[in-house]
Amino acid sequence: MDGTLRQGGFDSIAVQDGRIAALGVDKDAVALETVDADGRVLMPGLIDCHTHVLYAGHRMDEHARKLEGASYEEIARSGGGILSTVRAVREADEERLVRESLPRVSALLAEGVTTVEAKSGYGLDTENELKMLRAIRHLDRETPVHLSPTFLGAHSIPADRSREDYMDELVEKTLPAVIEQQLAETCDIYVERIAFTVADMERLFAAARDGGLRLRAHTDQLSNMQATRRAAELGALSCDHLEYTEEADIRAMAEHGTAAVLLPGAFYFLRETKLPPIAGFRKAGVPMAVSTDINPGSSPVVSLQAAMHMAAIFFGLTAEEILLGVTSNAAAAMGEAEDRGSIEVGKVADLTLWDIPGPEFLIYQLGGIRPDRTYIGGHPA
Amino acid sequence: MDGTLRQGGFDSIAVQDGRIAALGVDKDAVALETVDADGRVLMPGLIDCHTHVLYAGHRMDEHARKLEGASYEEIARSGGGILSTVRAVREADEERLVRESLPRVSALLAEGVTTVEAKSGYGLDTENELKMLRAIRHLDRETPVHLSPTFLGAHSIPADRSREDYMDELVEKTLPAVIEQQLAETCDIYVERIAFTVADMERLFAAARDGGLRLRAHTDQLSNMQATRRAAELGALSCDHLEYTEEADIRAMAEHGTAAVLLPGAFYFLRETKLPPIAGFRKAGVPMAVSTDINPGSSPVVSLQAAMHMAAIFFGLTAEEILLGVTSNAAAAMGEAEDRGSIEVGKVADLTLWDIPGPEFLIYQLGGIRPDRTYIGGHPA
Ligand SMILES: [Zn+2]
Ligand SMILES: [Zn+2]
Repeated sequence: MDGTLRQGGFDSIAVQDGRIAALGVDKDAVALETVDADGRVLMPGLIDCHTHVLYAGHRMDEHARKLEGASYEEIARSGGGILSTVRAVREADEERLVRESLPRVSALLAEGVTTVEAKSGYGLDTENELKMLRAIRHLDRETPVHLSPTFLGAHSIPADRSREDYMDELVEKTLPAVIEQQLAETCDIYVERIAFTVADMERLFAAARDGGLRLRAHTDQLSNMQATRRAAELGALSCDHLEYTEEADIRAMAEHGTAAVLLPGAFYFLRETKLPPIAGFRKAGVPMAVSTDINPGSSPVVSLQAAMHMAAIFFGLTAEEILLGVTSNAAAAMGEAEDRGSIEVGKVADLTLWDIPGPEFLIYQLGGIRPDRTYIGGHPA
Repeated sequence: MDGTLRQGGFDSIAVQDGRIAALGVDKDAVALETVDADGRVLMPGLIDCHTHVLYAGHRMDEHARKLEGASYEEIARSGGGILSTVRAVREADEERLVRESLPRVSALLAEGVTTVEAKSGYGLDTENELKMLRAIRHLDRETPVHLSPTFLGAHSIPADRSREDYMDELVEKTLPAVIEQQLAETCDIYVERIAFTVADMERLFAAARDGGLRLRAHTDQLSNMQATRRAAELGALSCDHLEYTEEADIRAMAEHGTAAVLLPGAFYFLRETKLPPIAGFRKAGVPMAVSTDINPGSSPVVSLQAAMHMAAIFFGLTAEEILLGVTSNAAAAMGEAEDRGSIEVGKVADLTLWDIPGPEFLIYQLGGIRPDRTYIGGHPA
């Protein structure tokens, strides 16, 4: 498939065991149901590579109060903020987490999204982090969408704990259980002044890597703690947010093949003004991905198409960059590039067919665009 | 119905001839199909009161080129801009205008929109303006959504005509035909340095009012030409855009009951920074409406929910202001307040039922929200 993601010169796709067996003209191959793709656009299934889509409750009232002028302090004092989501998630059982999150995943599927990364991180203790990861596995069974679980115990520091104390629990108790029970593919951490340090990341990553997990990091959202360059050196697949990323970080990312995951939904919802260094990533050849960051506090944006549109408007990404950012580069950021993100022999047959003038239409029109057909693992979804 | 748009204390809605006959507990009334509204939110159908939803073609390539750095001049030189849409609309027959526009109206309906105002203005000669208005009538028959046609012949000056010459045609030929054939309810004009003058508006409005049309105006989008205050004095139902509106305009709007129609989709897509004077409207008691401004050049935003969300984020409107802005204030801006915009006896039974924690949820979460049920004129849509 070429860089513009247009249909690549084949007129049939043969599928075997859920994977693309051949691209060609062999009409006897075990083919997808016959589809007249004339004048329509065939693309890989879209990939939302950074989400906190599993949660309970909502923060609607907090947002309404902010619009009416309430300050951050007033909201925190009345029990708002991330800790209100932690409370709701701790109170919910696995069943309820699945029930409340499924409509969000279904909304993504309706837009042509076939793979969604989903993080823990609202449990903030061993029991509740494991519950979240089990719920992600459970959610994966309830939807045709492929959900990829990420352990983000190091998302925030629990209200009643010291950072050091909580880090000990994560490294000595939670992570070993995650690994033993095979509940996650990837380990993530939020490095920021208000959260975890670069030293915490080094410690967590060492243990996660030993356990066979892939590594990712939330870095440079509010300040530069030199976390991106260190995460890249440590082999992180991606660094995510990156508003405060500097030249030295970009160099390290380029050197180590680390992807930059851009989250325009949070930029929009928080009315941020500091832009990630797109030109720097572009110049250095750092692969860029685009994702929703779905979460109840800073990005209740349950639309990858909206995130794609905003990546153009706010970040100035080109249509091609955005389309690669929700397909092959998104797969790379998740460590699933061998299996997904493009229409190639051997990859999972996640495909979308669109009645639009070209793939760039997804970046031009906001709203009102649905794929005609979506296939996941070769099956109509 | 109270200001927060919550369900108002009745437990059944009786409908006769498409209108609300009674709100109450009379189980023998000719009722809507029984709906268990417990814990769900009942709202009037949403109203998108300012759109250019009828058009042919698209400007996807223009947008992609802008993202790649093409200048306005380069795009204009290669035939882009509004004139490319005029060309596409002139080439399309009525049937094709309907076929290309229907998916956009259907997308609005899927979001709970039951009334859509639709303007002409890409024909820019008598024949093609009348064709557009006939196509809007035709589109109205193809969808359960109530479409309200607005004559906007004075949208832009045709490339090969002088403003004076085109104004003569509009007032002497096009408008009389529109009135005679009853093709529009309302007359609109775009007053701006690059378009029509306040004197043009005075002349057009006098003729339109004589013909029984309602009046509206696009004003203050790029500069202040004192058009808003004059439109208000002349009895315009609404002034729309209003980024450059001044205190004297606001006073005139408040005095004459003119609604302010805010268009955050265009603000977003054009990356504008000049905000309409929301605090001034609020203080003066000018009713505010929120709309998509759907059009292929400056607001290809086919989602009233996205426009509502952006009205909060960009303009700082409260949830209540936005909800009134797509119901009762939107109906007022269109001159349909007697028939639509609230759940009251005598009004058309346009209703939406939502499984959300409260109506403010529409302003909190972007994407993934669909009404459970939509009724238009009492019928499930
Ligand atoms: Zn995140
Ligand atoms: Zn307009």
